[in-house]
Amino acid sequence: MPTSRASVTVSTVAAIAVTAALIAIPALAAFAAPAPPTPPAPPTLDQAATRIRDAAIASDGAWNRLAWLTDRIGPRLSGSPAAAAAVAWGLQELRRDGLTNVHAETVMVPHWVRGEETVAIVAPVARPVVAVALGMSVPTPPEGITAEVIETDSFEALAALGDRVKGTIVLFNKITPAQIDGGGYGANNALRTRGPSEAARLGAVAVLVRSLGTLRARLPHTGSLRYLDGVPQIPAAAIAEEDAERIHRFLAAGETVRVRIVLGCRTLPDVESANVVADLPGRERPGEFVLIGGHLDSWDLGDGAIDDGAGVVMAMETLRLLRQLGLTPRRTIRVVLFMNEENGVRGGHAYAGTHKDELDRHMAAIESDSGAGRPLGFRVLAGAGADDAVRALAAHLAAAGSSAGSVDAAEHTGVDIDPLRAGGVPLLGLRQDATRYFDWHHTMADTIDKIEPGELAENTAAMAFMAYALADSPDPLPRLPAGEPKTP
Amino acid sequence: MPTSRASVTVSTVAAIAVTAALIAIPALAAFAAPAPPTPPAPPTLDQAATRIRDAAIASDGAWNRLAWLTDRIGPRLSGSPAAAAAVAWGLQELRRDGLTNVHAETVMVPHWVRGEETVAIVAPVARPVVAVALGMSVPTPPEGITAEVIETDSFEALAALGDRVKGTIVLFNKITPAQIDGGGYGANNALRTRGPSEAARLGAVAVLVRSLGTLRARLPHTGSLRYLDGVPQIPAAAIAEEDAERIHRFLAAGETVRVRIVLGCRTLPDVESANVVADLPGRERPGEFVLIGGHLDSWDLGDGAIDDGAGVVMAMETLRLLRQLGLTPRRTIRVVLFMNEENGVRGGHAYAGTHKDELDRHMAAIESDSGAGRPLGFRVLAGAGADDAVRALAAHLAAAGSSAGSVDAAEHTGVDIDPLRAGGVPLLGLRQDATRYFDWHHTMADTIDKIEPGELAENTAAMAFMAYALADSPDPLPRLPAGEPKTP
Repeated sequence: MPTSRASVTVSTVAAIAVTAALIAIPALAAFAAPAPPTPPAPPTLDQAATRIRDAAIASDGAWNRLAWLTDRIGPRLSGSPAAAAAVAWGLQELRRDGLTNVHAETVMVPHWVRGEETVAIVAPVARPVVAVALGMSVPTPPEGITAEVIETDSFEALAALGDRVKGTIVLFNKITPAQIDGGGYGANNALRTRGPSEAARLGAVAVLVRSLGTLRARLPHTGSLRYLDGVPQIPAAAIAEEDAERIHRFLAAGETVRVRIVLGCRTLPDVESANVVADLPGRERPGEFVLIGGHLDSWDLGDGAIDDGAGVVMAMETLRLLRQLGLTPRRTIRVVLFMNEENGVRGGHAYAGTHKDELDRHMAAIESDSGAGRPLGFRVLAGAGADDAVRALAAHLAAAGSSAGSVDAAEHTGVDIDPLRAGGVPLLGLRQDATRYFDWHHTMADTIDKIEPGELAENTAAMAFMAYALADSPDPLPRLPAGEPKTP
Repeated sequence: MPTSRASVTVSTVAAIAVTAALIAIPALAAFAAPAPPTPPAPPTLDQAATRIRDAAIASDGAWNRLAWLTDRIGPRLSGSPAAAAAVAWGLQELRRDGLTNVHAETVMVPHWVRGEETVAIVAPVARPVVAVALGMSVPTPPEGITAEVIETDSFEALAALGDRVKGTIVLFNKITPAQIDGGGYGANNALRTRGPSEAARLGAVAVLVRSLGTLRARLPHTGSLRYLDGVPQIPAAAIAEEDAERIHRFLAAGETVRVRIVLGCRTLPDVESANVVADLPGRERPGEFVLIGGHLDSWDLGDGAIDDGAGVVMAMETLRLLRQLGLTPRRTIRVVLFMNEENGVRGGHAYAGTHKDELDRHMAAIESDSGAGRPLGFRVLAGAGADDAVRALAAHLAAAGSSAGSVDAAEHTGVDIDPLRAGGVPLLGLRQDATRYFDWHHTMADTIDKIEPGELAENTAAMAFMAYALADSPDPLPRLPAGEPKTP
């Protein structure tokens, strides 16, 4: 029971926090002694922020849960037995926390499996290439594909190569810089998702992508490709940055570089899986919701700790902490652990579809899906003025000592909640310092040791307070214009 | 021909440097115009330092050579075909540079080869473990060894476990901190070299060592073990830090952890290999030597760029640059590219043995074997006062703008030159900033992209100047007491 010891700690700390708050407010303290027992007044937002943050910091509940998910269940790509185990675990843990309406919502998910992956330079000299298939890639023939490599770093440069692409293996070789907001990844990931089809359009026979990563460790980063309609589907793999640079050096020296690629990955029939849902019912308007979540699936190489076990346990811990602190907001807070963010977003679309008629009662949705670095604040995509309203709430977090006080309007908040745009739901993304996130993202090194327990707790506090504040606010956030999906 | 373009550049820059030096010294400039052509006076040490550093910085010779060695020849573990290719390459390049007495000196070397290596946690849950066999490990039986894991972090703590070690797999789980002088590695590497025998002494059936590395990237670091006489030889592997921490978490939770280890590595009969030797003959005392070197062999996982292709090309480039600059010191400078530093030091011992009767004419030896980070200076192991003498020389380097001005007395300078202690030879180790060296040391990520061309050039300059200055100095360094080997 990873959470039992933590529960004791949390209650104790909460009691201390309440006492401190009473001492700090003379008017209340004066009432406190003589008055007969009455239900305590709801805390101010500053008090709530402090209580939530203190409790989160004092608890190792989120971290212990993440250790269980990542050590015992491990990688949980959609369709895998481990993904099914994660669904069962999520339901069990949320029930153990005493939540309401705990249930699974069925989602059919893709079932892609990795196979042999052998990539090697065969000319000008034989050298191995450290590579992993891109998710959803078709396989090569069993004997592999051997062809000359042509290098490019953008779709524009690729187009300029024209007929020279025909029959080649295209290497997209672009450095991804480390940035606090992950912008380097954002700028380059079309090379991975759309690159295979763009190359195939010009007659390429396979694609290699320099890993979208920021750590030099011969560590290839997988991730999904998306084949475009009407274009041949060609196999594609990510290669370590070191290997991309070696190919570059050979080409720069005027050599003809030939590579052999053998990929045994394949897509099996869809599998039934599920989103996991649970509620902390609101005290006044239980039929109105603030949704919080992360995604339960992960890539198959690592343990899915930063991506996105962290978001999952933050959301679970939010409800557990609020319930333990007796902080019941006006509206219901609903946790959704989404399935299949990585290679299909079927869970996000399924939730938006299943709950289509209730989306007007979804007052906001918050997702965390960029690790558990120091929390910086929130991205907001909602109606006019919403970012100001969220900024006012985040100020209470900052006043309580949290680093999560900054708020920005944004076009992207979270992949799983993005389908809720269609219902006009105000969307928030919890922002972390992502400077090191892309060191390990989508690799076998995505393990829990990359997460500082204290930073995970600060993230939990930020999500929990914002969920509480939005669910308790008399004034809902301005909504997006409904029926206007804006997915880029 | 990686060096031809660089040669032109070097000559041009050298000419500019000479001109600048003349302009800067009015007395010489006054003589320069009217005097009939005579051999130029030997440069001052300040002039020599500036000319050498300018030429090294202007040249991409060292880097191009390193790219050839690491990209085209690649990993070159003793006894491998690539190690033989590296010997042939070294001879060819040194001949191409116009050096004297270029030859191979035969060394019989161990021939250890890696095989299957599969390590996995089998209880409390099945999880893979990213592992590499330690160099020189015996294999497991084909079906592997499966046993309970017992964890320790020192030989003292191991001894305290006593009988509990019997029949177990011992995990040495100690963090290696990143330090500028590589001290963390120095403090821990006995766990790897001697750990298997210390564990076997108490009845362990196999050993796992937490990688002696400083980068969290699921990147296991190999390295040699040394079986002690009279103790059973048990198989041993290094595991990624992430996997060591997972085992620790399971053990800390009170679980019994069982691991299965399958290692197919084996030691084949010794192979004939060689040290590569070449001379830049001295102008006055060609029978006296300053030896410079690095080691030509590398581990089998990466390309051996930082360990120790860098040292190899610095030494080669030293002779090429001095020859091009016309800087011929009093004594001969000899480059030795040592074979088998990594798993036997046979080359180092062979050189000391073969040249036993000439060691009194070896006035100093300089090795570089800790990468090509920013050069900091020199470690010195020699007779009383030698460090002061070297410090005085390094001051000229610093005056020329080099970062390599610091000098410290030390017990360790370089593994390959260490056997020269027996002959009293003053030993110097070129020191680099090694803060990141153990991120990649002994891993598949030891590739040339970890080396900044400018830093490699600065290292070359530091080695070349110190070799020149020691070889030209009227006063040889104080020698070690002869016949007193001090290998720790």
